[in-house]
Amino acid sequence: MATISDIGLAAAINILSAFFFFIVFAILRLQPFNDRVYFPKWYLRGLRSEPSRSGAFVKKFVNLDFRSYLRFLEWMPAALRMPEPELIDHAGLDSAVFLRIYLIGLKIFVPITLLAFSVLVPVNWTNDYLEKSHVVYSNIDKLSISNIPNGSKRFWTHILMAYVISFWTCYVLLKEYEIVAKMRLHFLASEQRRPDQFTVLVRNIPPDPDESISELVEHFFLVNHPDHYLTHQVVYNANKLSKLVKKKKDMQNWLDYNQLKFDRNPSSRPTRKTGFLGLCGDKVDSIDYYTSEIEKLSKEEAEERDRIKRTTKSIMPAAFVSFRTRWGAAVCAQTQQTRDPTVWLTDWAPEPRDVYWNNLSIPFVSLTFRRLVTSVAFFFLTFFFMIPILMVQSLANLEGIEKVVPFLKPLIEQKLIKSFIQGFLPGIALKLFLIFLPTILMLMSKFEGFIALSILERRSATRYYIFQLVNVFLGSIITGAAFEQLHTFIHQSANQIPRTVGVAIPMKATFFITYIMVDGWAGIAGEILRLKPLIIYHLKNFFLVKTEKDREEAMDPGSIGFDTSEPQIQLYFLLGLVYAVVTPFLLPFIVVFFGLAYLVYRHQIINVYNQEYESAAAFWPDVHGRIIYALVISQVLLFGLLGTKKAAQSTPLLITLPILTIAFHRYCKHRYEPAFVRYPLQEAMMKDTLERAKDPNFDLKGYLLNAYIHPVFKTEDDDDSATGDQEMESILVPTKRQSRRNTPVPSKYNGSSSPSLSEVVRELP
Amino acid sequence: MATISDIGLAAAINILSAFFFFIVFAILRLQPFNDRVYFPKWYLRGLRSEPSRSGAFVKKFVNLDFRSYLRFLEWMPAALRMPEPELIDHAGLDSAVFLRIYLIGLKIFVPITLLAFSVLVPVNWTNDYLEKSHVVYSNIDKLSISNIPNGSKRFWTHILMAYVISFWTCYVLLKEYEIVAKMRLHFLASEQRRPDQFTVLVRNIPPDPDESISELVEHFFLVNHPDHYLTHQVVYNANKLSKLVKKKKDMQNWLDYNQLKFDRNPSSRPTRKTGFLGLCGDKVDSIDYYTSEIEKLSKEEAEERDRIKRTTKSIMPAAFVSFRTRWGAAVCAQTQQTRDPTVWLTDWAPEPRDVYWNNLSIPFVSLTFRRLVTSVAFFFLTFFFMIPILMVQSLANLEGIEKVVPFLKPLIEQKLIKSFIQGFLPGIALKLFLIFLPTILMLMSKFEGFIALSILERRSATRYYIFQLVNVFLGSIITGAAFEQLHTFIHQSANQIPRTVGVAIPMKATFFITYIMVDGWAGIAGEILRLKPLIIYHLKNFFLVKTEKDREEAMDPGSIGFDTSEPQIQLYFLLGLVYAVVTPFLLPFIVVFFGLAYLVYRHQIINVYNQEYESAAAFWPDVHGRIIYALVISQVLLFGLLGTKKAAQSTPLLITLPILTIAFHRYCKHRYEPAFVRYPLQEAMMKDTLERAKDPNFDLKGYLLNAYIHPVFKTEDDDDSATGDQEMESILVPTKRQSRRNTPVPSKYNGSSSPSLSEVVRELP
Repeated sequence: MATISDIGLAAAINILSAFFFFIVFAILRLQPFNDRVYFPKWYLRGLRSEPSRSGAFVKKFVNLDFRSYLRFLEWMPAALRMPEPELIDHAGLDSAVFLRIYLIGLKIFVPITLLAFSVLVPVNWTNDYLEKSHVVYSNIDKLSISNIPNGSKRFWTHILMAYVISFWTCYVLLKEYEIVAKMRLHFLASEQRRPDQFTVLVRNIPPDPDESISELVEHFFLVNHPDHYLTHQVVYNANKLSKLVKKKKDMQNWLDYNQLKFDRNPSSRPTRKTGFLGLCGDKVDSIDYYTSEIEKLSKEEAEERDRIKRTTKSIMPAAFVSFRTRWGAAVCAQTQQTRDPTVWLTDWAPEPRDVYWNNLSIPFVSLTFRRLVTSVAFFFLTFFFMIPILMVQSLANLEGIEKVVPFLKPLIEQKLIKSFIQGFLPGIALKLFLIFLPTILMLMSKFEGFIALSILERRSATRYYIFQLVNVFLGSIITGAAFEQLHTFIHQSANQIPRTVGVAIPMKATFFITYIMVDGWAGIAGEILRLKPLIIYHLKNFFLVKTEKDREEAMDPGSIGFDTSEPQIQLYFLLGLVYAVVTPFLLPFIVVFFGLAYLVYRHQIINVYNQEYESAAAFWPDVHGRIIYALVISQVLLFGLLGTKKAAQSTPLLITLPILTIAFHRYCKHRYEPAFVRYPLQEAMMKDTLERAKDPNFDLKGYLLNAYIHPVFKTEDDDDSATGDQEMESILVPTKRQSRRNTPVPSKYNGSSSPSLSEVVRELP
Repeated sequence: MATISDIGLAAAINILSAFFFFIVFAILRLQPFNDRVYFPKWYLRGLRSEPSRSGAFVKKFVNLDFRSYLRFLEWMPAALRMPEPELIDHAGLDSAVFLRIYLIGLKIFVPITLLAFSVLVPVNWTNDYLEKSHVVYSNIDKLSISNIPNGSKRFWTHILMAYVISFWTCYVLLKEYEIVAKMRLHFLASEQRRPDQFTVLVRNIPPDPDESISELVEHFFLVNHPDHYLTHQVVYNANKLSKLVKKKKDMQNWLDYNQLKFDRNPSSRPTRKTGFLGLCGDKVDSIDYYTSEIEKLSKEEAEERDRIKRTTKSIMPAAFVSFRTRWGAAVCAQTQQTRDPTVWLTDWAPEPRDVYWNNLSIPFVSLTFRRLVTSVAFFFLTFFFMIPILMVQSLANLEGIEKVVPFLKPLIEQKLIKSFIQGFLPGIALKLFLIFLPTILMLMSKFEGFIALSILERRSATRYYIFQLVNVFLGSIITGAAFEQLHTFIHQSANQIPRTVGVAIPMKATFFITYIMVDGWAGIAGEILRLKPLIIYHLKNFFLVKTEKDREEAMDPGSIGFDTSEPQIQLYFLLGLVYAVVTPFLLPFIVVFFGLAYLVYRHQIINVYNQEYESAAAFWPDVHGRIIYALVISQVLLFGLLGTKKAAQSTPLLITLPILTIAFHRYCKHRYEPAFVRYPLQEAMMKDTLERAKDPNFDLKGYLLNAYIHPVFKTEDDDDSATGDQEMESILVPTKRQSRRNTPVPSKYNGSSSPSLSEVVRELP
């Protein structure tokens, strides 16, 4: 049993290590040669270029201004300074709303913590149930609900608190849903013209013996949307081609690397082996080898391009159909086209940069099958992943270790090491398991056939959350307790489960506190340091970078990774809500997590991450729903726990609570969710009218013509039709861009105030 | 315990009484003066007028052709003779599809019965478990699953049968869903022009300080649907007015009655008392009294009409908005109009005759509250209604009666009477409880605020079904068994309930067999006799009828009452599916019910009922869903039952079954339900184009102008604008009609083949 002093030690270690990380970060970020690692967003937006070149040579790499080191925490207030509208402008609505999740955490848990410490802690502390019961207990347990004797009248306090907490959480969620919905609508209304506003993705076009897909689509929409249909773009199966393009690019990288190596050391030409991974086989000259490989691939690529354009086989029964007006597109996207609800399926097209092209070529009929397979696979992944965790958990138990490796006993028994092991080991073991999981889940989602990155990420997030719920939360509670009661648990009936889990909850408080520190605090401190990108950038910079474009690619910070970050935050919501009534001692750790995370991620979003797409906060209903589920789980578990505490007279009150919560959820769904899934005709009409008035002669057809072309065809077009393409994209993305990679559309584009515009105008051809 | 011979006796009694009913029906229907009771549909459609007047006077009232009495069952083949397309033409799609529910019953249960009797009955019968166990049992139990010893290998037969039955039921349901969806789409595609195809009901129009509702609606739709908006009709709160109109009509009836009485017996003028219900107070001359009352009401009515037209207060924030094309209406009905999902709510307008006008004046905000209140009320109605049933059931137990009234013991102990009581009493008691229920449920639905009769009926049907499920099915099973195990049941956990119910199921087979006979067989035989309408018609005919119009009103057969009939059929599906594996002996009774009911209702639909509205089989998803639920319930209960029979090795197989069934349901929902809730744009466009080509100069605006006027305003308009109105309605309803009451639109109107057309043309002004 870990005592408060154990936890205190662990907390001290964690705080110190976080502090250490911050200092390292402060030093690293001030070095000019790290500038592109810690402030890539500004480079990508074109607001910052090379660090001042006027000074001494050494100044280009090392910051010698010692005063700046003294203000090593100044990034914290700086991160908070940028107001939200500017943040939306700077980083997009997705990122700005993502930060609000942390803010919600603070809004929910700060008042709850204060309340719990002023009410629940005294109520729990002033009992002597644990003392009298002669069981082993730590002083954390004395602060928890375990210290209340069975059948005590004091449980009414806990029930009242459960109500207060639930109402407060719901209130915060309601307000937040309202704000986010308003932000989204405002964002959509003030958005620039974008191809996806006019475009609908049609899938499962039925085959026709007389017409090609393209003709069929044209005729169908000319007949059924005569006043609105403008143009369309068929979808090619270019997966093979993009593989070739990717392979060629890899080869080019290797060639560059070898070329650079040779340039630096002209005395020896680099060589490599031709066999597996370059480890075996004949030795050849690297530069020659890669040059010939690239030539071969170029030929293959040209053939493939030719094949795609020649045969009709590579045309998928899907098309991007564009309309004259947003109104027309909104109508088509939101209605059923034909009798048969399985053909001519229309839905909004994702943003061009949000499209996941590989999946557009999946035949629609196989989607149901793919969905089934993924569900089954996910089920097995979720439930059989528990076996290794179970083993590790049993080791993490101190007595367990002593049994398995008895010779370590004297070492472990030392107080400091004991505390250390108890504080860290279980959290780390779990964490290690989870590192490779998001990749697997993303692969699953891709296999399932979603056609937009945003949907892929949302889906992966849902799965990741379920996984964490089952394995991290329930898994830790049940398997940990399993050594005491596994046998009885298997033989219990369905309605006994909340009881069994509920009883185990207070016992696992210590474990989750250490988990919050190791996973939450340290994770965030590590996040700001960006050790991995730092190393990779410098390696790339040294070995590969030749041009400015290469450098931009090397510093690419990626997007924030909604699919992993959001479920992780959700776990803390769950822990906070579950333990709020049971063991309030855990709450301050949650509050510190949310505060720190808000600060760090605000800094990162302003300075680092570069969102790949903009879904206008389409993920919010998921976030809202999961917090509600966490609330319901907390209520059910409290019900289970009190059921064993002989507080049966409170049953009706405790059953009412989840029912009310679910009713609240349904209300919110009805009231706010439409803002996230439908596009009202009035909005569409307003934007159409406004735009027609402002720009009556705009060539929409030209604008939309190539918007939904597969990216591999775009690179090809570069050479011959670069100007037209450039023009189109310059409307899309008015930022400084040397490369053709995706950079975010400035969300709410305000011509006069944004400092980026002047730069952009200067940079544009 | 009722034995097979008890059941046989009851069956014989029931068959005989049904036969007796048929004979009475045969005699009554052949009498010309009953013709309007048994064949009103033909009169209403204008295909039959007064029985031949050429013969002797007596022939007008009594049929003296004795040969016709000999063929007293000839209506049975006659009912089956009309082919389905003609039936749709004659009685509408709703009625034709309603008959298909009985047909499904036959399709499902005839093969199941054959299979069960050839496989399950021998398997059950060839055991001697009950003999050995020394418990009291009847020979029905020997045919049931109760006769299989615990843990026997023979249970595999039952599990296999459960699979076969489930697959067969799902297969029939799938085929049927496909057929009905096709019928619906075909029906909609070949429909005549109707106002509801062009009209959308807009509700919750937000108030505007500067504009009236009417202006607001016009501006809104001119802006947001500029190419499609045609006209609109605001909704008045005319509830008070329609009450006055109704009261006036009642008074007119009384006046007619007294006038007729005075005409027949001119010596004494009829009198009445002015007090409560004419029972107390001063005596006055009836004719004078009613004349003055009518005058008073007429004045009040005129004032109220004036008030509605003058003040804006009686205009509700709702409107019927009509569009130029079906396409425009389809778009508006199926999209969201504004940012706020709670205002400007659009949905398809119901048919004009389907509109429930009283509810259009309910403020939209109160709907949520009303829904909540109704749910709570329904919950209490469902669960507290059980108390009286419990009492009656306990009396229906023979031993119970003997205890309560011991002096009746010698009487009851007589064999014949004992069989009679055991066969009839429980069924009748339950039936009596249920007679007044549909009215209460319909009132609930009306209070809830639905705006179409079809929706009201569907909602009531759902509630009625749930009620029957809880009270008739579960209630009978659990309370009946309660005297053995009520105490233990209360203290059982959630997953024990299927077991408890499952165990009780074989014991209640006899009860349900008698219930099927009393409620099903006898009910249907009574249905064809139409005793209540027969008496009412003759009373009205004698006391009130002066004109042909009055006679038509007196013979009004009403519609088939989906809200009561459908849930009742569903109960038989439930019983059939639950007992198919457990006590196959019950199946023939179900088959007889479905066969008889199909025959009788086909006859009634052809000759009697007159559908009030046409929803184009919109109820089918409900029907389908409920049969699926019945299937799942039967599977869960079988699981519970086998759980107590120590056949635990079959658990995974039995858990898989409901999961598969629900997956099947989801597939059906996805594949076929859209045909019942959405209107594809292609269909709309096709009809629009066709109509434009056929009738390019049609004045749609004039056609739609008064389509959605409140009926009380229509009667007023009769006097001044009768021709215009008449013209409009003649397009709607080209049948012979002296009255303005609703008669069905000939569904698939085929000008040349329908015999009614020539008559219609002759009758039209």
